[in-house]
Amino acid sequence: MTYEAQYGAYKRQVEETLSAQAMAGAPDRLRDAMRYSLLSGGKRLRGVLTLASCEMAGGKAEDALPFACAVEMIHAYSLIHDDLPAMDNDTMRRGKPTSHVVYGEALAILAGDALLTHAFEIMAQSHHPKALPALAEMAKAAGVGGMLAGQTLDVTLEGTAPQIGLVKAIHEGKTAALLTAPVAAGLILAGAEKDQIQAGRQFGYHLGMAFQIEDDLLDLEGDQALMGKTLGKDEAEGKLTWPACVGPDQAKKDAEMHVSAAVNALSCFGESASFLISLARNTLGRRQ
Amino acid sequence: MTYEAQYGAYKRQVEETLSAQAMAGAPDRLRDAMRYSLLSGGKRLRGVLTLASCEMAGGKAEDALPFACAVEMIHAYSLIHDDLPAMDNDTMRRGKPTSHVVYGEALAILAGDALLTHAFEIMAQSHHPKALPALAEMAKAAGVGGMLAGQTLDVTLEGTAPQIGLVKAIHEGKTAALLTAPVAAGLILAGAEKDQIQAGRQFGYHLGMAFQIEDDLLDLEGDQALMGKTLGKDEAEGKLTWPACVGPDQAKKDAEMHVSAAVNALSCFGESASFLISLARNTLGRRQ
Repeated sequence: MTYEAQYGAYKRQVEETLSAQAMAGAPDRLRDAMRYSLLSGGKRLRGVLTLASCEMAGGKAEDALPFACAVEMIHAYSLIHDDLPAMDNDTMRRGKPTSHVVYGEALAILAGDALLTHAFEIMAQSHHPKALPALAEMAKAAGVGGMLAGQTLDVTLEGTAPQIGLVKAIHEGKTAALLTAPVAAGLILAGAEKDQIQAGRQFGYHLGMAFQIEDDLLDLEGDQALMGKTLGKDEAEGKLTWPACVGPDQAKKDAEMHVSAAVNALSCFGESASFLISLARNTLGRRQ
Repeated sequence: MTYEAQYGAYKRQVEETLSAQAMAGAPDRLRDAMRYSLLSGGKRLRGVLTLASCEMAGGKAEDALPFACAVEMIHAYSLIHDDLPAMDNDTMRRGKPTSHVVYGEALAILAGDALLTHAFEIMAQSHHPKALPALAEMAKAAGVGGMLAGQTLDVTLEGTAPQIGLVKAIHEGKTAALLTAPVAAGLILAGAEKDQIQAGRQFGYHLGMAFQIEDDLLDLEGDQALMGKTLGKDEAEGKLTWPACVGPDQAKKDAEMHVSAAVNALSCFGESASFLISLARNTLGRRQ
């Protein structure tokens, strides 16, 4: 199977399982708001990483599906809350009005809360023998030392002079943590060894850094219609980005360096790493 | 030990453990905001229920401490988000300015998100053999079929005519679910039998309903200085309350009925239920 076909197959599995979530007991308005953001497209990168990492270590992708869905729910919650008027105040996301524009602020806050909570609910109910350590990995990545640290720095430091140390901390928290956790969780579910899981974390970290630096470059140089969101906003709002610190040329080199480091981290997996290696290489050059 | 002394001892255990939470990796501002709400007093009812239920079934309270702290974090998160301008727009809570008044809306949203996520992090890292089913109980109660269902109905139905069916659904979600889960979790951690856990859930449900009906009555008839928050707000804002549907006299009778049902639910535990029975009886008459 080609890389593209394999990505498509993983993505379809994630998409179908997300779509089938009953969200039992949710009032209609809440379920609608959750589904609006959860099923609004996107690459499903975090879900695909979960399934692919599980298979790389000899596990079954099916067993990792609740965790793939959970990390997509955590990602969706973070976007809803990020977009709120009190945060980034974004009105468009993936070519559609953001949650609070459609449902109002109160329901957008609740839909985010609900997606975060539901992620833990489906992981806890997965009945997988390794569910607890895999869930712990996700909680840590989404938590105060991970995504929420990055988000807090991003919000509180807006408008300060670009400093590479701060941008690194923000990118590590906001992006790399939630690309690392699905890789580690997938490996844990597959019963991988400790050093394999650690190699997976290295891969996820460098992939995440490459991905976010590329994202910063896209905001600067990308095609607005293709991206489905307002571009140039980072600069206009004084957001701390990688190219703002080191310039676009160095940023491109840094992204390439992180992709190489990601690829190297997977050497212990041999042939079975080929899909994730292709995935890392595909991170670059989304600007064309 | 008297009931009061025992309650105080449980409460102190919860308070000290909450106070000692490192929240490793959290940026200072985020940790400050989390601690501001988490350590702002309160009865620690949910934490005490966790410990007492665990001991009632022969478990050690210490083993349930991460779960007692987790449910207090979930409760604290729900109050922060409830108080936001887009939700209830409350500026005072327990005699202190609310989180968004002190830290701004963005950080208040993040502090709530962080407390919710941290709750799952500490439960997942508790290394208790029954951690997963106990965590699942908490996730379900906090989730779309529990607390968030109640909160959604509360927000979306504000101003509609009082209807006992709706108020019941709101109170079951917003209050009873998060008093039921710590009881069930405490029993699960103690290795209780299925029918004991089910009895515990019945107890928690009726305790929660009694507690919330009393809370509605307090808002109507209580002493503002004693409560540390604005009273009469429910009525002024058209909130759906129990006395608004059935009148204060019937509401008092209903609260008493729920306390009796709570007490009866614990009959299978014999003598060891005496603390929780006293706790249920103490729910009534906080108005004096």
